[in-house]
Amino acid sequence: MVVYLVGAGPGDPELITLKAIRVLERADVVVYDRLAGEEILEYAPDDARLIYVGKKPGEHHKTQEEINRILVEEGSRHETVVRLKGGDPFVFGRGGEEILALSEAGIETRVIPGVTSAVGVPTSAGLPVTHRGVATSFTVVTGHEDPTKPERQVHWDYRADTLIILMGVGNLRDNMEEIMKHRPGDTPVCVIEKGTTSDERVVFGTVSDIADKDIRPPGIIVVGEVVNVYRRIINSMEP
Amino acid sequence: MVVYLVGAGPGDPELITLKAIRVLERADVVVYDRLAGEEILEYAPDDARLIYVGKKPGEHHKTQEEINRILVEEGSRHETVVRLKGGDPFVFGRGGEEILALSEAGIETRVIPGVTSAVGVPTSAGLPVTHRGVATSFTVVTGHEDPTKPERQVHWDYRADTLIILMGVGNLRDNMEEIMKHRPGDTPVCVIEKGTTSDERVVFGTVSDIADKDIRPPGIIVVGEVVNVYRRIINSMEP
Repeated sequence: MVVYLVGAGPGDPELITLKAIRVLERADVVVYDRLAGEEILEYAPDDARLIYVGKKPGEHHKTQEEINRILVEEGSRHETVVRLKGGDPFVFGRGGEEILALSEAGIETRVIPGVTSAVGVPTSAGLPVTHRGVATSFTVVTGHEDPTKPERQVHWDYRADTLIILMGVGNLRDNMEEIMKHRPGDTPVCVIEKGTTSDERVVFGTVSDIADKDIRPPGIIVVGEVVNVYRRIINSMEP
Repeated sequence: MVVYLVGAGPGDPELITLKAIRVLERADVVVYDRLAGEEILEYAPDDARLIYVGKKPGEHHKTQEEINRILVEEGSRHETVVRLKGGDPFVFGRGGEEILALSEAGIETRVIPGVTSAVGVPTSAGLPVTHRGVATSFTVVTGHEDPTKPERQVHWDYRADTLIILMGVGNLRDNMEEIMKHRPGDTPVCVIEKGTTSDERVVFGTVSDIADKDIRPPGIIVVGEVVNVYRRIINSMEP
């Protein structure tokens, strides 16, 4: 009896790994969040039980404690339980809490990494998050917390060349104001909306003006000189 | 005529994406580096030409300019050329230079992200690089440059909660000395050697003592409190 924490990748259903498909194909139970590409669930056997634990607008959604309890219950009853999460299970996915709850309950767990949106979305769009002579480091942060909360751990003074913000479109203006305390206002930014899907859209700007543009979540925000490299790549592609 | 930059994932041949397999299956030419899992090349058709451009000990290896020229040449002659790189093509893979050279030569390119070792190796080992209340950000850097070089851009004063160092085992002592200028010497560290392969080995220590241990490249170095979370997970798994 094993619970697999499995990364589903950034959205495009073909960006799932072979290893994830193979374990889904023999799942008794699949516990899943809202996924960009729900087609992935079709790899599960017809008689597998699918348990949705994501959020639905306007409805009660399960707390992390409830999800942990479901995982422990299913994991102690079934041979193969898959906990399917978008992106990579350990990048802002609360997978660490789930694996702790499971292992403390004596349930065997294994983790199958996925393509994290943090890297996979820019890469798929053609944006190199590192580039020789331009960016030799990148920081990934979540932007969904209110950056003005005094108890907030995040301070935005990350010194990596490239800054990648997940879940930051909702707080875009606040996030950019925090970043402007540490980087020049003309630092290039781009937002990739709905990356790796057919609705992907890229919006360019700077730290000081990106919040004035029409941008809707979900989106990945990339800050730094690599955005100019990306523009060079795109410009040289045009006829 | 399209050149695909494709990420092969961190080592385990099953950690390749379905999208990468589908393009390999119709490749006319595959241009590849040294890969942790060479089985991946078997997805290419029997009559595909395989061009190795990685390093071999003691032999002349191709410069980036030579590789770019090969890609442009093959890309202007064949329907489907795959440039296969370990991990993700844009995480320290010089993929940005290749896509620039190709697009400047008027050759159509597409990029297929892969599971980057930076995240996939810790995740696969069960180490959460983010964890609620412990780490809400991570920085990925390359550690293969000499950190004492004065012209070196990297300064190691990254302020993310988790620091992930790729290609840093060779310079482990120098890298840790630089980090100790910015983090306490008892900050937990672990090194995952040959991650996601059957030879995987994990070594624990602190910033001040990890360099005294017997560690051989290739390895991913993870620095920060998440290493203690990982120890809790491992300890609760033991009977």
